[in-house]
Amino acid sequence: MEGSPVPQSPVRSIIGSREGKGSGATFRAVNPATDQTLDEEFLPASVEDVDLALRLASNAFSHYRQTPGKQRASFLRKIAVKIESVANEVIERAHLETALPRTRLQGETARTCGQLRLFAQLVDEGSWVDARIDRADPDRKPAPKPDIRSMLQPLGPVGVFGASNFPLAFSVAGGDTASALAAGNPVVVKAHPAHPGASRLVGNAIRDVVKECALPEGVFSLLFDNATEIGAALVKHPLLRAVGFTGSRAGGRALMDLAASRPMPIPFFGEMSSTNPVFILPGALRERSEAIATGLHASFTLGAGQFCTKPGLVFYSESDGVQPFREKLRELVRGSSPFHLLTSGIRTSFNSGIASRKQRDATTRITESAGKASDAAPFVGAVLFETEARKFLLDPHLSREIFGPATLLVHHSSRDELLGIAHGLEGHLTATVLGTDSDLREYADLLAVLEEKVGRLIFNGFPTGVEVTHAMVHGGPYPATSDGRSTSVGSQAIFRFVRPICYQGFPNASLPDELKDANPLGIWRMVDGAMSRDAILPHFTTKAG
Amino acid sequence: MEGSPVPQSPVRSIIGSREGKGSGATFRAVNPATDQTLDEEFLPASVEDVDLALRLASNAFSHYRQTPGKQRASFLRKIAVKIESVANEVIERAHLETALPRTRLQGETARTCGQLRLFAQLVDEGSWVDARIDRADPDRKPAPKPDIRSMLQPLGPVGVFGASNFPLAFSVAGGDTASALAAGNPVVVKAHPAHPGASRLVGNAIRDVVKECALPEGVFSLLFDNATEIGAALVKHPLLRAVGFTGSRAGGRALMDLAASRPMPIPFFGEMSSTNPVFILPGALRERSEAIATGLHASFTLGAGQFCTKPGLVFYSESDGVQPFREKLRELVRGSSPFHLLTSGIRTSFNSGIASRKQRDATTRITESAGKASDAAPFVGAVLFETEARKFLLDPHLSREIFGPATLLVHHSSRDELLGIAHGLEGHLTATVLGTDSDLREYADLLAVLEEKVGRLIFNGFPTGVEVTHAMVHGGPYPATSDGRSTSVGSQAIFRFVRPICYQGFPNASLPDELKDANPLGIWRMVDGAMSRDAILPHFTTKAG
Repeated sequence: MEGSPVPQSPVRSIIGSREGKGSGATFRAVNPATDQTLDEEFLPASVEDVDLALRLASNAFSHYRQTPGKQRASFLRKIAVKIESVANEVIERAHLETALPRTRLQGETARTCGQLRLFAQLVDEGSWVDARIDRADPDRKPAPKPDIRSMLQPLGPVGVFGASNFPLAFSVAGGDTASALAAGNPVVVKAHPAHPGASRLVGNAIRDVVKECALPEGVFSLLFDNATEIGAALVKHPLLRAVGFTGSRAGGRALMDLAASRPMPIPFFGEMSSTNPVFILPGALRERSEAIATGLHASFTLGAGQFCTKPGLVFYSESDGVQPFREKLRELVRGSSPFHLLTSGIRTSFNSGIASRKQRDATTRITESAGKASDAAPFVGAVLFETEARKFLLDPHLSREIFGPATLLVHHSSRDELLGIAHGLEGHLTATVLGTDSDLREYADLLAVLEEKVGRLIFNGFPTGVEVTHAMVHGGPYPATSDGRSTSVGSQAIFRFVRPICYQGFPNASLPDELKDANPLGIWRMVDGAMSRDAILPHFTTKAG
Repeated sequence: MEGSPVPQSPVRSIIGSREGKGSGATFRAVNPATDQTLDEEFLPASVEDVDLALRLASNAFSHYRQTPGKQRASFLRKIAVKIESVANEVIERAHLETALPRTRLQGETARTCGQLRLFAQLVDEGSWVDARIDRADPDRKPAPKPDIRSMLQPLGPVGVFGASNFPLAFSVAGGDTASALAAGNPVVVKAHPAHPGASRLVGNAIRDVVKECALPEGVFSLLFDNATEIGAALVKHPLLRAVGFTGSRAGGRALMDLAASRPMPIPFFGEMSSTNPVFILPGALRERSEAIATGLHASFTLGAGQFCTKPGLVFYSESDGVQPFREKLRELVRGSSPFHLLTSGIRTSFNSGIASRKQRDATTRITESAGKASDAAPFVGAVLFETEARKFLLDPHLSREIFGPATLLVHHSSRDELLGIAHGLEGHLTATVLGTDSDLREYADLLAVLEEKVGRLIFNGFPTGVEVTHAMVHGGPYPATSDGRSTSVGSQAIFRFVRPICYQGFPNASLPDELKDANPLGIWRMVDGAMSRDAILPHFTTKAG
């Protein structure tokens, strides 16, 4: 790190309260703004480290799964406080490793701690477990009805893969980790190799809080590796029970296939790729063409276009306002400042994606930042491609995600063509519609098609900027994610890492608090099919069976 | 069928409102009580039939997913009424095809119609969609907070594999079909080849109700096949979105792997195998050893031991009451009447499983029905195996499921041995503990281990007999099911076939009724994190974005 002394020995993985044994050659992060290698050395985890992390996690699970929600809430809040106490150092390090601006990293730190506190609030309140009680009826004919009570319980050790593009909010203490820990699962994180230093600082913070809270050390481990072996070993480990992943489609699918082909397959929640189609309807273009151009430019270049929700496909038709929209957008693209990308690998992919798209016959016009750099420079320019719907429909290449500040305008000439495009879309995280209320009524059929394609529909907004709330769905049909039945952002993310368990005929004293007659936690429960926060009296005093 | 004329042409698959084209050689069901082939001929579906069924289903989905819950409720109730109207014929046919007693089939018909009505009630009331509303705050800093609303929506066409052991409740109109239809998904059923006649009658009933309700024909199709090709074609079809399966571990895993290896993987919900361990604690044995023997015998021979919840492993230790328990159980086994199994294939498997287990050195004692038949006879006797824990732990063969009226008593000599056995269990649907309340307190550590192994824990009851309620969990960690995060019985089964979708910034008029401010359906919703059935006023009148 600039100005710091060279460390004496390489940084090792965090295996519970211990240091990883490690194996192989050390690696260092690179500052993507300068292409300079940073000082700190990291030793990749060994397969034995993975095994120890999982054995500690599995042992910890027996205890940790039974901790009360309030205790887990306190644990999560302390992690947030601890991260805040080292925030300056984390942000500085992440800035060096990712070239993301400090202000963005400050916001991301706040979001990360906000997520931890959201899940703390959820498990503190407690109703999230979906407690259900169906009372006994010993007089039922032909057979007595037993007392049956169910609630959600944690799965066991969860593996989390840190993402390159959110060194905090989707990494070591990100949403996957927060939701898995909140539900009662130990977590083993594989740090993204592009920001090991920031990962280490956050990992140390969690490790310290585990100790302060007197939790078993196996509740958290952090593995370093700059290749694929350790991630694969993690996914294949027999004691692992679920995986959270954010990354590329190729990497995600490879790990997803590993998870499915285990002797005991486990759920794999991968967020993999999305081009987030935007549909500009005629009324909107008539009313506010320049504002749309400005908003779209800001959205597709936000974070250098390195968001999973970046709008990479924009559909519009001829109508009043088209010319000013296109002119304004082209002007903004030409005037874009250069962007640093997260890694030299992402930069290479972006440059080759742009080069390859430039050669498509289907591309009718290309606009680039005026100050575009050479391929060798450590920054890139914004790129706007334009084409027509009939060409777009014939060239599947144009639907592919280009990770970085580029987007594609597609001009369609009929409503049928538009619906045909919508029907042909694969799964995405989001779809956006810009229009007037009357546009929305007129294009109800388009909306209906889009509902089948995405996890989130946005009206008169832009897809970047994912609120962390109870209703957020950051997920979508394959290949946007591996399992469109879940979200990786917002409080519903906790449902990925739990399963229902039911108890039949148990005496009150032996039931979890959530299911006791008296409802000591005061949570919402479904009692004989009706929602209630009241204590209940069993219908009958005799025991069913 | 006995007494009916031979049909002129073979029965074909039901593809929407059409007949399947079919392909290959016809097949007939066999009466397993007599080994006689029944008259009615069935023509296997062709791959083209599968394709047409899925194309019709996919087309139907666009309409069916948007039908109001009340309309789907009416559809499901009409299916129940229609099945009741042909119940005598269905029961008679199922009795011939499965050798299950008529009284059992009457009960199963009632259960099947009860399940349809449970899901009708669920979607009629409507709160199951987990509607969530996070209101906008345009004054939030640094950026305005948009309005976000989410709810569960159907996945698309669902494939259902009928089970051999429940020709009604887990077959054509069984729990998978009822829950998938309730959620808004078209269903394509692959009938189990052992009871095609009963399947056809129920399939015709559903087809007729689809028409009566003026729903698109593709909402339901029924495929016949007596091999594996059509099932595989169904699972691999690109328009299929999820699968429900009840059957063997080998068949389940093969289809599960097919679902995971598709270009677009889809969720596969397979219920595959379980031996449902029973733990008899000392207090219970002291207090009621003979009652336990009687209950256990009734449970493991119920339905000729062909329930997924049959108790196939029973653990107990030396204590007062052991001798009378064992004596009583052996006496009941010796006195058991012969059992017809569902198919000659299941009979062959049972006989070879018994023969193989008899040869294990670990088996210390074998008790059989006095009137045991020869292997060639179309019935089998009950079998009780006994062994000791240390032998059980060394012979994995003894943990395997034997589908039919057999169980294994395992005598352990220490608490450590018992906990070791519990830790070593794989995933099961259920675990049962028989004990006093003080046993339960004393063995809290055993209970904690069992919670990690199963979907349902039973105290002082027996695992057979699965209540169809809101709290029921009929599922469990692999290999009991493919995905322990779900249940195939009870109202929570609907959650298998849905995914959340969220709407950001939409005007009220364009939102689904479930998410409109006025709450016109009067459902429970989570509004800004709090449960409510009230209408809401948006916090602010300006529109977010």
